[in-house]
Amino acid sequence: MAIMALIAANVLAVVLHSVPELEARFGREFHAFEVFSVAVFAAEYLARLWSCVEDPHYRGALRGRLRFALRPLVLIDLLAVLPFLVMVAPVDLRVLRAARLFRLVRLLKMGRYITALALFRTVLRQKREELVLSVAFMAVLLVVSSSIMYFVENGTQPDKFSSIPESMWWAVATLTTVGYGDVTPVTPLGRIAAGLISIVGIGRFALPTAVLGAGFVEAVQARREAPACPHCGGALR
Amino acid sequence: MAIMALIAANVLAVVLHSVPELEARFGREFHAFEVFSVAVFAAEYLARLWSCVEDPHYRGALRGRLRFALRPLVLIDLLAVLPFLVMVAPVDLRVLRAARLFRLVRLLKMGRYITALALFRTVLRQKREELVLSVAFMAVLLVVSSSIMYFVENGTQPDKFSSIPESMWWAVATLTTVGYGDVTPVTPLGRIAAGLISIVGIGRFALPTAVLGAGFVEAVQARREAPACPHCGGALR
Amino acid sequence: MAIMALIAANVLAVVLHSVPELEARFGREFHAFEVFSVAVFAAEYLARLWSCVEDPHYRGALRGRLRFALRPLVLIDLLAVLPFLVMVAPVDLRVLRAARLFRLVRLLKMGRYITALALFRTVLRQKREELVLSVAFMAVLLVVSSSIMYFVENGTQPDKFSSIPESMWWAVATLTTVGYGDVTPVTPLGRIAAGLISIVGIGRFALPTAVLGAGFVEAVQARREAPACPHCGGALR
Amino acid sequence: MAIMALIAANVLAVVLHSVPELEARFGREFHAFEVFSVAVFAAEYLARLWSCVEDPHYRGALRGRLRFALRPLVLIDLLAVLPFLVMVAPVDLRVLRAARLFRLVRLLKMGRYITALALFRTVLRQKREELVLSVAFMAVLLVVSSSIMYFVENGTQPDKFSSIPESMWWAVATLTTVGYGDVTPVTPLGRIAAGLISIVGIGRFALPTAVLGAGFVEAVQARREAPACPHCGGALR
Repeated sequence: MAIMALIAANVLAVVLHSVPELEARFGREFHAFEVFSVAVFAAEYLARLWSCVEDPHYRGALRGRLRFALRPLVLIDLLAVLPFLVMVAPVDLRVLRAARLFRLVRLLKMGRYITALALFRTVLRQKREELVLSVAFMAVLLVVSSSIMYFVENGTQPDKFSSIPESMWWAVATLTTVGYGDVTPVTPLGRIAAGLISIVGIGRFALPTAVLGAGFVEAVQARREAPACPHCGGALR
Repeated sequence: MAIMALIAANVLAVVLHSVPELEARFGREFHAFEVFSVAVFAAEYLARLWSCVEDPHYRGALRGRLRFALRPLVLIDLLAVLPFLVMVAPVDLRVLRAARLFRLVRLLKMGRYITALALFRTVLRQKREELVLSVAFMAVLLVVSSSIMYFVENGTQPDKFSSIPESMWWAVATLTTVGYGDVTPVTPLGRIAAGLISIVGIGRFALPTAVLGAGFVEAVQARREAPACPHCGGALR
Repeated sequence: MAIMALIAANVLAVVLHSVPELEARFGREFHAFEVFSVAVFAAEYLARLWSCVEDPHYRGALRGRLRFALRPLVLIDLLAVLPFLVMVAPVDLRVLRAARLFRLVRLLKMGRYITALALFRTVLRQKREELVLSVAFMAVLLVVSSSIMYFVENGTQPDKFSSIPESMWWAVATLTTVGYGDVTPVTPLGRIAAGLISIVGIGRFALPTAVLGAGFVEAVQARREAPACPHCGGALR
Repeated sequence: MAIMALIAANVLAVVLHSVPELEARFGREFHAFEVFSVAVFAAEYLARLWSCVEDPHYRGALRGRLRFALRPLVLIDLLAVLPFLVMVAPVDLRVLRAARLFRLVRLLKMGRYITALALFRTVLRQKREELVLSVAFMAVLLVVSSSIMYFVENGTQPDKFSSIPESMWWAVATLTTVGYGDVTPVTPLGRIAAGLISIVGIGRFALPTAVLGAGFVEAVQARREAPACPHCGGALR
């Protein structure tokens, strides 16, 4: 629980650190908090590495520890400490900023403590077939609709629909119904095509959402009906 | 029923009172209506406070009444009268306006008369687990996507993506598919990132809606099948 | 079937007639088609009125016909003819245009021939309770969110958030996720409030859609399983 | 599998070829790849045409081959080769560009290899009735709402709501919730009408999506439960 709170505080620190005024005013406090966090995370990492040989799976002073260190969750623990090394090294501003944002990888450490994230993986595995199909439909729709708009609008707006990849920006914004409005068709033919594309396409783009939503509700219900340990609440199956 | 109509008229008055032309022209009528409403609400409040000692739960001339006065619904009755006291006091315009809008708290008085609001609480309680999970996913998604966009777009648009909290305005507008278009990525990399974020993210953001919608339909059906009092239509269980 | 095609052609004529270039060029043809349509509709109306006395419900040369003429579907038949009388009278342009658009009322004549429209009425009746509740939630949400935004943004953008009714334009565009972007909050507090409102509110606004969609799918399935007349395909129950 | 990869590479080539910089730099490579692709597709087409007489359905050196060549999937094979003939002919730039985009028809060749596309056809067939009804509702809603907005806004914004077909651009953008924001009502009456239209209309426009989504999930489940060939995974029924 304490580690969870520290991770949440770290994420908050990354977010607030990006505000220029706060960085100018509390830069030293942010740095102190970062040093403290890294010390805690490093201590946790070393403790895990030290004690892992107790587990019969990772016996062997060096080889066992190495195999343990290569497990995904343990690698994440290492990655959570690394950005600090870059931040104290003499690097330019852009690398420094990337290192700071990279601290968000600490969010992944939460995966160790939240068993519910497993739920999402279950949904993704169960609905894999539907999701792959939906994504394939989306990709085809994206290519076809941006090609049509490129062909129709390129003559009138050569700067906004300058190529098919450029037109995809319009297509994504339209098919997801975000609709920023920075790129819109202006020719009558382009508007007719855009209207048909949005009416036909939105249904297809909403499919993964519908599939995931249904799978999510099913998975939570299945978990609720599964027998749970009366002591810790963990699933018994 | 009369109280319900008065509350609805009050809400309408708050809304219309905010229009400068109407305030200039009917200011006196609005004030008279407010005085009348407050008189009715105050009378209702005092009557409740007076008669509550009849209820065996709140016996005792002073202590019973005090305990009654601290119940949430009774506190709301008091809050519904209070803004008037501020409005007649010599306060500056901004406080006056806040007091006026605060009259909307009278909407909560309706909770006493609409048993159906209980339905919504039921849904929130039953689907608590799904909702908490969905909101956690949303928060993580919001932080990660606004961090990515801040890193990618900050160099080109330092005024619009000036910090991670600033970029969250873009992230909320995109992930809810509102898409105002006042803040949009302009670099190729930013647009690719924004496209991927919107395609991946919208499904996650729509989860709470899907969960709530399903719970709502279930709850209404459960209530319809539950035995109801043949006289007043209230639920017997 | 012929009447259906004529109605469709009429709707198309109304739509195309509104284009200035087409009106200038084919004005006479549009008028001729209108005269022809009105003649057919008037003939149909008179024939119905003439023959209705055959039906035992509407016996009586005058009183029976009058009662028949007041039925909703027959009134629509009359309304479908009336705009023509205005269009030939010497009226100003605005009234003329209104009369032209009013011809779209002919679409309602289709209700007589499409039995499937009954399906939609069935859904509305069955899900009445959920819909009324959802609409009430929407109304409360609209008033509360536009009041908040009016209070927060009025100081900075007095022209765009000049009153609560004005702010409702923003609230509708946001809560339906249309998001035109012509009115957006600019203050940090306003953006935080707008973000929370859109995240919380969109789920509520999508409820009627979810309810209607579910009801629609159910109703079509119920109709498919109901016994149908082997001759005309009409429902036997 | 090799043909699938070649088709995917072709689609990618079409997309990248539209970028002016890439065309200027790798024009020759694109051309060489196109020649290679057309050679493969032509060889495949001729091989199919040659060997089809083995099938008892298409016996007869000429008449059998002609009947085979007119099958939809075989016609698509021919169409996939044709654009090349236009591209080498001395044509102007616009025709050349159309020919290039027409190469996307090669995507349809994938239909031969992806049995899962059949799933989508199944859904469309099973939910035909609901979809036709939904589309009819959408068309009526589109005509009525754009007529209303044309009538209300034409006086104030004669350039944006110049005719009913022009107003349809607004109606499509609003009812699909894309909301570009390039065309918005500015009069109070227009905003009230737009608000009501968007609240009422969005539910109707989302119906086809809900219907398709439900059908899609059902179809995948039905297929999963159907017995499959243990060797190739194809459905046995």
